[in-house]
Amino acid sequence: MACADATAEQLPDSFPGKVRLVEMSPRDGLQNEPGRIIATAVKVELINRLADCGLNHIEAASFVSPRWVPQMADAAEVMAGIGRVPGVRYAALTPNLKGFEQALAAGVDEVAVFGAASEAFSQKNINCSIAESLKRFMPVVEAARAQGIPVRGYVSTVLGCPYQGDVSPQQVASVARELYAMGCYEISLGDTIGVGTPLQAKRMLEAVAREVPVARLAAHFHDTYGQALANLYAVLEEGIAVIDASVAGLGGCPYARGASGNVAMEDVLYMLNGLGIDTGVSLDKLIKTGFWITGQLGRQNGSKVAQACGPAQPLLGPS
Amino acid sequence: MACADATAEQLPDSFPGKVRLVEMSPRDGLQNEPGRIIATAVKVELINRLADCGLNHIEAASFVSPRWVPQMADAAEVMAGIGRVPGVRYAALTPNLKGFEQALAAGVDEVAVFGAASEAFSQKNINCSIAESLKRFMPVVEAARAQGIPVRGYVSTVLGCPYQGDVSPQQVASVARELYAMGCYEISLGDTIGVGTPLQAKRMLEAVAREVPVARLAAHFHDTYGQALANLYAVLEEGIAVIDASVAGLGGCPYARGASGNVAMEDVLYMLNGLGIDTGVSLDKLIKTGFWITGQLGRQNGSKVAQACGPAQPLLGPS
Repeated sequence: MACADATAEQLPDSFPGKVRLVEMSPRDGLQNEPGRIIATAVKVELINRLADCGLNHIEAASFVSPRWVPQMADAAEVMAGIGRVPGVRYAALTPNLKGFEQALAAGVDEVAVFGAASEAFSQKNINCSIAESLKRFMPVVEAARAQGIPVRGYVSTVLGCPYQGDVSPQQVASVARELYAMGCYEISLGDTIGVGTPLQAKRMLEAVAREVPVARLAAHFHDTYGQALANLYAVLEEGIAVIDASVAGLGGCPYARGASGNVAMEDVLYMLNGLGIDTGVSLDKLIKTGFWITGQLGRQNGSKVAQACGPAQPLLGPS
Repeated sequence: MACADATAEQLPDSFPGKVRLVEMSPRDGLQNEPGRIIATAVKVELINRLADCGLNHIEAASFVSPRWVPQMADAAEVMAGIGRVPGVRYAALTPNLKGFEQALAAGVDEVAVFGAASEAFSQKNINCSIAESLKRFMPVVEAARAQGIPVRGYVSTVLGCPYQGDVSPQQVASVARELYAMGCYEISLGDTIGVGTPLQAKRMLEAVAREVPVARLAAHFHDTYGQALANLYAVLEEGIAVIDASVAGLGGCPYARGASGNVAMEDVLYMLNGLGIDTGVSLDKLIKTGFWITGQLGRQNGSKVAQACGPAQPLLGPS
């Protein structure tokens, strides 16, 4: 049985026929390498390889103050260095107007703002209330729309918060609605610490989908407690058609204990292939890319599919 | 947020309200430690600790020829050494009549026979056809029934085979039906190499449930490709109420490449707790037991929940 061949099944109507996969590793994965600055050339190579896998939506960089996130100080150089593939969206996180202007100058296709569903997380993470954070995003969204740049809105801690514990589906729905009303074209719902379970994910999604069309929602689930694929399956049943993940499971939330954060893109893709859901992404190329970047970082590959299939034709250096 | 607290949800009717968890580690986990013989005292201690977690169904040993599985040569001593807890079923694998007689003498509560859904796997693994293997099990099942000992039937490779690739749901259903008709009270359906995905698991279960009542079926899914929890969620939706797993993810199939085999009991239990499904098992105690046994074996803990929660009060030696 070939590694890439999950047996595809007849898909029930509630599932999406196609899923757009959004790759997080260049921004979220490399940002969270503690105490390390990754070479610009490696970031550029990673993004180029991901595009070659068939991924058409890549979060490439973060335009934030280098004082806060020194790992992202080369965001403009990364954007200048990559080989732009037609049809691929190269996105960037832009928490404020200054970041947005830098991102615009660097030629990003899309920007993103990052809010929380938990008051406690908002206070600790971005040092203001949820309401204040939304107010701060407003000029970014307005400036982006004036330039014809789509804005993605992230909502974190949608299934639990490391500081306050439970987060109600209504609270998630309320923040998602405000970001959508403000002009975000898509809302990505993040289980930042990976504590959610499938029915909880489903109930949260149902609550949000009463405020924002499900076609405008994305699932961004971390695998810290091993629940991410089960949670994704549960929301796929509800029609979610956009999933955020990270090759080799790179990155994730530094607030969660344990080794894992982002769900591995390879494992998500393997499941989607098995479900018969089209993504346009090559699992074979993705596995190779995962082994290449983990080799560069000297990290273990966090994808079980990759571990099971092995590093076929491993590429030990940038090519 | 406490580690053990997944938020429980209102359960839809198709799900079981209770699940019996069957712990595989003393037999399947310790048997697969390559080239190592685990001390009898460690096995005994593991089984006692698992019972203390609230697990009431533990596969404690395998009565097979020590020539084939030297790790299980002390099966009778293990059975004699454990502190039998009332209400706990201590089960053993008995592939033939000789094994059954030894198991009976050792005082097991339940025995099990092990068949395959794949012809190729049956030939390579037990050196005979599926039909022959079923014929060989018959005297074991008859002898056990004469003694009032319940027999569990395993079916392996239900979602794919390392030698022949695809395995049809009809083939699985046919083997399950024969084991059930022979007198096995429960049929455990094993994704031996962990290649299945959720809809495939659901379709397989639906086919088997047309031959054997779903209340007589168990899910035994490996996590080699990271799909086990998603697959379990999919069959829980169909009413599966018995799940096999292994503390700390110990053991699994030596035929599958990669680091993982059995799905970690902690991760299964965390999901069930989140779904609001009752098991009677303490996650807190289970996490401690997992860290204790992986400490004994010098192995990494394969449970993501355990890794996320950390080894609270680690016990570094047998106590």
